[in-house]
Amino acid sequence: MEPETYAAGVLALQSGVAFPDARIAYVTFGALNAARDNAVIFPTRFGGTHEDNLYLIGEDRALDPREYFIVVPNLIGNGVSSSPSNTGGAFAHGHFPAVSIYDNVLAQHRLATEVLGIERFALVLGWSMGGQQAYQWASLYPDRVARLAVICGAARTAPHTHVFMEGMKAALTADAAWAGGAYREPPERGLRAIGRAWAGWGFSQAFYRAEMFRELGYISLEDFLVRYWEGLYMARDANNILTMLATWRSADVGANERYRGDYAAAMGAIEARTLLMPGRTDLYFPPEDAEAEAELLRRAEIKPIESVWGHYAGGGRSEEDLRFLTAALRELLESD
Amino acid sequence: MEPETYAAGVLALQSGVAFPDARIAYVTFGALNAARDNAVIFPTRFGGTHEDNLYLIGEDRALDPREYFIVVPNLIGNGVSSSPSNTGGAFAHGHFPAVSIYDNVLAQHRLATEVLGIERFALVLGWSMGGQQAYQWASLYPDRVARLAVICGAARTAPHTHVFMEGMKAALTADAAWAGGAYREPPERGLRAIGRAWAGWGFSQAFYRAEMFRELGYISLEDFLVRYWEGLYMARDANNILTMLATWRSADVGANERYRGDYAAAMGAIEARTLLMPGRTDLYFPPEDAEAEAELLRRAEIKPIESVWGHYAGGGRSEEDLRFLTAALRELLESD
Repeated sequence: MEPETYAAGVLALQSGVAFPDARIAYVTFGALNAARDNAVIFPTRFGGTHEDNLYLIGEDRALDPREYFIVVPNLIGNGVSSSPSNTGGAFAHGHFPAVSIYDNVLAQHRLATEVLGIERFALVLGWSMGGQQAYQWASLYPDRVARLAVICGAARTAPHTHVFMEGMKAALTADAAWAGGAYREPPERGLRAIGRAWAGWGFSQAFYRAEMFRELGYISLEDFLVRYWEGLYMARDANNILTMLATWRSADVGANERYRGDYAAAMGAIEARTLLMPGRTDLYFPPEDAEAEAELLRRAEIKPIESVWGHYAGGGRSEEDLRFLTAALRELLESD
Repeated sequence: MEPETYAAGVLALQSGVAFPDARIAYVTFGALNAARDNAVIFPTRFGGTHEDNLYLIGEDRALDPREYFIVVPNLIGNGVSSSPSNTGGAFAHGHFPAVSIYDNVLAQHRLATEVLGIERFALVLGWSMGGQQAYQWASLYPDRVARLAVICGAARTAPHTHVFMEGMKAALTADAAWAGGAYREPPERGLRAIGRAWAGWGFSQAFYRAEMFRELGYISLEDFLVRYWEGLYMARDANNILTMLATWRSADVGANERYRGDYAAAMGAIEARTLLMPGRTDLYFPPEDAEAEAELLRRAEIKPIESVWGHYAGGGRSEEDLRFLTAALRELLESD
């Protein structure tokens, strides 16, 4: 599926960099209705592209394009929107600037309002870093977001996740071939290392105990580590990975000029009917963090995904989780 | 504290290697009483030495040397007993053989019976890999172990822990300076990477959320990552780390010629009164694994350590956890 490109011009990033010729790649499904009240925005997750969001989009799925106008913008740094791997000039490769969730949402807001003519969203949703973007949308533009669904995500990145990411970054950059981002050939050893080191975080203890990777077509644990995890990271660009990690790490709905670091105020500003769907065994976004978030929200409900698929519970690879997500999102869409 | 050395001669390892001139370094506290019924053995954990077991030994601690004869044998590969870093000849450095928990316990058994004159232990205990050795003792020598205490340990290594270890190994060996174990200077980048990557596993989400590292004297998260975690691994030898990881990975009480892979039989053979103390937030040895183990044991009780210190709950760095451990172990020692 070939995405459209929104030429966003110069982005004045939170890091102070004026990033020129920014491009947000996006796809849409369905059409805006006459009442202009059927728009949905569904930003992408870490390492994912619009293709990876298709699990919730379709006639039999949570987001039916016959009924909704669905916009999927790609995260900056994911290799499809502006990224180290596709940027030339002063910001190429290892020189790509730090980009925040807030920076992404400002650009998406311009795309939605100026290009697509959307004034208000029936639903803003996302999985993982997509959920962080959704949170930022609802906090920054309360009157534009009727409903919010955060699937295995968080309003700000927890300290433990920060530690996890430092480990991933260290595994990748332990390979001298990374060369501070100036590699000419991919740092294969480092990419394999980050893939292998990530494996324990993505899925739960119970997932591995039950060898659920067999459901995904892998014949052994080592096969899963090599073909899935190493393969996943070898297909990614090292600087793109580091850019997205930095975006994830700095995520905080309150860290912007509107809320000036006041996290509680940023959360309290959210007017959307909110559905939080943490994964019961998610090692990044544990359910207790969602409970703490709900206390700061006006209209939040928590529906944990009772799954051993860890963080991937939100990704719908397990049919049971996908059914649960689909039913919960449809119910949210039908609510007032 | 300078350890004694038991020259164990040639070890016929499970890997098929005949390892010459093996040395088990150990320390003892107290003396064997006339009834010869007061011996305790407390093997060391991954990366630890006898010095790291002192938290449970002393007049005011769980194991009082006035009352018990306490033996602390060092794990092979820990840098004090025979290890890649202190072995010359054919098995030096990267050529050190694979050593199992079973191999360690066979050597410890000879030390205990042939050198120290111990026929039966009042208690065998350990934290983490020390707990794995304790389990192996109780399974292999049921009539020599009256009581067993496993603190944040397991009778066999879980698949998820295997995945975790693969990640740690990948982070360390992503540094080309590791050179397949033939480094002349320590692979600093890889050692820092494994330290940083390990940080998220050792302590829980809640530990980092509450910044409990401040209780250990670190002034920020980054300070903890650098001074504690990178410092810890920079002080270790890379080949020693890999040897201990391989030992941990292969741990299984049933994987030996006595039980021939029959895990349930190896567990069922244990006659000791058993106390399992998993950490509530331990990411390697979750409490549900202890519950599954208890079902295979004849006389097991589970007392989870209700702590946010993750795996380190068993290490007694938190005073509350240490009090809990101390009381539980004393009660076990006083039981029939």
